[in-house]
Amino acid sequence: MQEAQFISLLWLIGIIAEAMTGALCAGKKQMDLFGVVIIGCATAIGGGTLRDMMLGNYPLIWVENVHYLIAIALASLLTVVIAPVMRYLSKLFLAIDALGLAVFSIIGAKKTLALGFGPEVAVVMGLVTGVFGGVIRDILCNQMPLIFKKELYALVALLTAALYISLKSYGISEWANLAICLPFGFGLRMLAIRFQWGMPKFDYQYGEVH
Amino acid sequence: MQEAQFISLLWLIGIIAEAMTGALCAGKKQMDLFGVVIIGCATAIGGGTLRDMMLGNYPLIWVENVHYLIAIALASLLTVVIAPVMRYLSKLFLAIDALGLAVFSIIGAKKTLALGFGPEVAVVMGLVTGVFGGVIRDILCNQMPLIFKKELYALVALLTAALYISLKSYGISEWANLAICLPFGFGLRMLAIRFQWGMPKFDYQYGEVH
Amino acid sequence: MQEAQFISLLWLIGIIAEAMTGALCAGKKQMDLFGVVIIGCATAIGGGTLRDMMLGNYPLIWVENVHYLIAIALASLLTVVIAPVMRYLSKLFLAIDALGLAVFSIIGAKKTLALGFGPEVAVVMGLVTGVFGGVIRDILCNQMPLIFKKELYALVALLTAALYISLKSYGISEWANLAICLPFGFGLRMLAIRFQWGMPKFDYQYGEVH
Repeated sequence: MQEAQFISLLWLIGIIAEAMTGALCAGKKQMDLFGVVIIGCATAIGGGTLRDMMLGNYPLIWVENVHYLIAIALASLLTVVIAPVMRYLSKLFLAIDALGLAVFSIIGAKKTLALGFGPEVAVVMGLVTGVFGGVIRDILCNQMPLIFKKELYALVALLTAALYISLKSYGISEWANLAICLPFGFGLRMLAIRFQWGMPKFDYQYGEVH
Repeated sequence: MQEAQFISLLWLIGIIAEAMTGALCAGKKQMDLFGVVIIGCATAIGGGTLRDMMLGNYPLIWVENVHYLIAIALASLLTVVIAPVMRYLSKLFLAIDALGLAVFSIIGAKKTLALGFGPEVAVVMGLVTGVFGGVIRDILCNQMPLIFKKELYALVALLTAALYISLKSYGISEWANLAICLPFGFGLRMLAIRFQWGMPKFDYQYGEVH
Repeated sequence: MQEAQFISLLWLIGIIAEAMTGALCAGKKQMDLFGVVIIGCATAIGGGTLRDMMLGNYPLIWVENVHYLIAIALASLLTVVIAPVMRYLSKLFLAIDALGLAVFSIIGAKKTLALGFGPEVAVVMGLVTGVFGGVIRDILCNQMPLIFKKELYALVALLTAALYISLKSYGISEWANLAICLPFGFGLRMLAIRFQWGMPKFDYQYGEVH
């Protein structure tokens, strides 16, 4: 298997995991099946779509290859079918989501570099790709974005993207880079969930913000 | 009247109906007149704007012809004036909104095909054009998007766009296509309201979604 | 100092003020430091980013010069540090925010004209640049956009942009134009806060909006 195919495979796992988080969130709000599909799609491709729109990089991936959308829609509907057993699979599910986070951050950074942008922009876009699908999901479900309150999530995306870019700048092979960054991002996220590591909170309750 | 003029006329009716739903939603949240205008505009042109931004199709319609924005702003303000009688006109209003939904879906599909994209992308963009104005309205009004919970709405947009594209692929004339798709989309939406047809709901209340 | 440098300086003050309103809003929702930074950034650059994405004007300012993002991130974090004294500085803070509003509106209009768009589009984009950072902040914090309910804000952006464009069309020098428009926008906003000037509200509590 080529390295590009391996990344594509991981990316598919990632978008399916993200679609499932979107579908479950829609289910918590008792949406209908169409809402489930739309929120599943927005969660899975929202981060990458926002990145490409901010970079002016057209056509968007799912416009060029609309079969991804169909796969995501099916994954969203499948989530409805298997929902009764999802709660017994919650640890597996968290693991797949953590893998998706690491993969999305790496892909976001890699694509941005490939478009000729500098490493700082690539770190930002790794972060955007990794976390904004979930932010868009939470906006569509009318709830506060979870990733700004819970265990390390955005920081994992940022550090994974930064590590990938740093190692790449030293000329390390793509396979070796993935072999380091994927376990790093995945492991950091899993440890954060296990030990409830979070960033310090900012609690500001005075006065009026305009 | 040319067929393009007829579509433009219907489109004008559609954006005015959408502007009015935006203005009423702002009124439910007791916003000021500027909020009414901004939410009216975002509702009326949000779906088409998102479509064109996702396709990289510039300049946007309302940037090229800013008079549309002024018409929408006036329609939003007019809604405030006639609000006291709106509740007696609610059936008329639902009918205009249903017409707008059908028109937007057809226009979204038609424009996407005209840009050279394939039929699947055109269906997706018909859906986006038809429903995302309302989604953006609900986000700006800080409420759960209604179209994911109530009677058939997004499905009407999808089916109308798909029907239009299918018939077009058989070489049917544009007039005949409109004569079939407009009553189809309009009628399906009105029947859905009348008989409270909705998609099945997904109710998921277990565990924590990350 | 050149006029362009003076505007850049004011713009920096403006984005820092906006970043601080974003950080405080995140603090009201007890977000973590990463949420503070992301919402600070989205508030500070959201309006200009949306404008440039709607105009198809790439690369975005902060993609071309990523150091702005770092400055905004630091300003957001600084807000956390100085939060205990912020409530004693609330008047100073409102004044800086009012200055930012005037500057953003002028810059939005000026950039749009420089891209070759007409004066009406430039007014709209002055408004978008001035107020949508705050709208995006409120969406990310899951609250109703404040600017649609409180003292004059969006109207200040619109009038300031329109005044700037009108005076420019009479061939007035850039310095003279700034010397008129900055105090106008700043003063109007401060007077609106002082005397609680607001637009009339639209209160619509009947029936169902679809």
